[in-house]
Amino acid sequence: MKYLSIAAAAAAATSTPASAQVVEVTPPESMQRSAPALADYTKNTLFGDVWQREELSLRDRSFVTITTLVALGKTDPLRSHINRGLDYGVTPVEIAGIITHLAFYTGWPNAVGSIAVADEVFAERGIDASELQTIETERVALPSDDDQRAQGVEQSMGPISPALAKYTNGVLFQDLWRRGDLSARDRSLATVVALTANGNADQLGFHLQRGIQNGLTRDELGEVMGHMAFYAGWPKAFSGANAIGDLED
Amino acid sequence: MKYLSIAAAAAAATSTPASAQVVEVTPPESMQRSAPALADYTKNTLFGDVWQREELSLRDRSFVTITTLVALGKTDPLRSHINRGLDYGVTPVEIAGIITHLAFYTGWPNAVGSIAVADEVFAERGIDASELQTIETERVALPSDDDQRAQGVEQSMGPISPALAKYTNGVLFQDLWRRGDLSARDRSLATVVALTANGNADQLGFHLQRGIQNGLTRDELGEVMGHMAFYAGWPKAFSGANAIGDLED
Amino acid sequence: MKYLSIAAAAAAATSTPASAQVVEVTPPESMQRSAPALADYTKNTLFGDVWQREELSLRDRSFVTITTLVALGKTDPLRSHINRGLDYGVTPVEIAGIITHLAFYTGWPNAVGSIAVADEVFAERGIDASELQTIETERVALPSDDDQRAQGVEQSMGPISPALAKYTNGVLFQDLWRRGDLSARDRSLATVVALTANGNADQLGFHLQRGIQNGLTRDELGEVMGHMAFYAGWPKAFSGANAIGDLED
Repeated sequence: MKYLSIAAAAAAATSTPASAQVVEVTPPESMQRSAPALADYTKNTLFGDVWQREELSLRDRSFVTITTLVALGKTDPLRSHINRGLDYGVTPVEIAGIITHLAFYTGWPNAVGSIAVADEVFAERGIDASELQTIETERVALPSDDDQRAQGVEQSMGPISPALAKYTNGVLFQDLWRRGDLSARDRSLATVVALTANGNADQLGFHLQRGIQNGLTRDELGEVMGHMAFYAGWPKAFSGANAIGDLED
Repeated sequence: MKYLSIAAAAAAATSTPASAQVVEVTPPESMQRSAPALADYTKNTLFGDVWQREELSLRDRSFVTITTLVALGKTDPLRSHINRGLDYGVTPVEIAGIITHLAFYTGWPNAVGSIAVADEVFAERGIDASELQTIETERVALPSDDDQRAQGVEQSMGPISPALAKYTNGVLFQDLWRRGDLSARDRSLATVVALTANGNADQLGFHLQRGIQNGLTRDELGEVMGHMAFYAGWPKAFSGANAIGDLED
Repeated sequence: MKYLSIAAAAAAATSTPASAQVVEVTPPESMQRSAPALADYTKNTLFGDVWQREELSLRDRSFVTITTLVALGKTDPLRSHINRGLDYGVTPVEIAGIITHLAFYTGWPNAVGSIAVADEVFAERGIDASELQTIETERVALPSDDDQRAQGVEQSMGPISPALAKYTNGVLFQDLWRRGDLSARDRSLATVVALTANGNADQLGFHLQRGIQNGLTRDELGEVMGHMAFYAGWPKAFSGANAIGDLED
């Protein structure tokens, strides 16, 4: 049983183990044989260059990659990236936290499929399931202007879909967003990645701003889009980056 | 061999068997072990609260869930939700009707994968395949203003893509939309759900209005978005709900 | 080892073997049994009509279908359509080229999953892997106005995401777009299809115009959308066709 305190979560966030370095990647044999150019891009551009950039920690690159794969429902590559993430400092509780968060932001089916993969990796690595049974000793505080957001949802969405307004304010923000398995900064990061990966750039403005409130920098967010181009595709990353450009200073 | 008559279809629509109640759900063991918070949301929020709301019949909730899963190509959870839908009053002919409709609205690959799952469930439950071989005794009438829609497509799309204009008017509306395996109301519902799940909210306006012509209420549509938030993710549901809000009174 | 020269690629493009004809399709038994109407549309509309239209060569229809399936991550139907494409004149090098191109335009996971399928088909058909090991004897020229595009990216994207600007100009356009495994015309076609299939119609304007520069005709592009309606769904095809309509004359 693990006790989640906010201070500890904040301290843990973004810390890559000092010993971590980008593990060399051997592209799959099918790729080397049938698409040698793609194998070359994988080895030399993606892992030999993108993953080496210091503008984002290895831990954050893994966090972003795992979140993208969950958002896209890509359970095959998710397995190796959960392993990589655990090596780079993403904790098991955080991986479960990402998947739980994305149940809401990308739908239950993605989360159910992803947790089955994570559960297998955790077992293979001998991670004690009791570590994933958490008790929250305090809850994450929402920003001071969250009341305004809640009233906006109630007024604009309440008359259209009482259910959606109810679960948005009562469960999504007052419960999920206040959980201690992800720091506020990481929860914003997961949300920005999920919206970008699924092509909901029109809803990024609010979450980019909240992410900056929660400690993400514009430089980090820009680097996230460069990284995501390789995992969610160029068009999604361009839409995401444009949403950053549209933020007021 | 089943004879499809429109009157019968309309009578059957939205009828949940009187004995049906929400079957208690045990979250998968992998989830209980590795994401206990998600197991808790699944049990207490999704099945313990959302599915219990009376603003939408159990039959309609199943119809919406099945349609969402077909639209997203999520064949794993589709299996259990087809079973659930059959318990709650969605008929085998309607399930085949949803999948056929979504071949057009979300692409053939989703339909081919989904019918393979449905076929297995039908066999397991001993549903006689001859029931699914249907003969239409009459065809569903299109709304009186459909000529206007057809002319609009011919004028705007004809010069750009004669093929798309031809199949839209000749097959999609004059054939698929007139089939008796789904009532007009349910066909509109399936279309609204497919557009919402796949992020095509820009094309929802027309189909929300036609859905209301075909007997869906605004309250039902709002509740559909609250339900879909859990299966297709919050951002898609918000876009869908906003499209309802944009309808003229 | 295959030597890629641009002239040869351009000559090969769009050539369907004279002997090729649409292979009759038997819908899967699960579909015949459980969704006979869908089996009927598959046989009579999709293969009996759409695929027979002469507005697009069989080779191009296969190229578009394969690209759509890679973009959507649909590896099951991809297998039979790679086989069909090879029969209709899409070369193994072009299939690897599509998949490599879509790694960038729809994300690495789609490409990794797709190349595994292609590799199996190539082996089954006895295609010599050495044919897929290519040496470029010359590089494809970018249009004369590409400097302008590069400067635009540098100015608008550079300050937001230096990584995205760097890889867009340095890798995507100066390397991937200049590869000889796809003709310029086919690379534009693959890009238009990928953007359409993934709902990025807002970014189609630039690539439709470049496609026309590279030799695609408006009529071909319109027919592509009619074909894609069946594989990516009507709403995506409509958005794509509308983007064609928005092009300036």
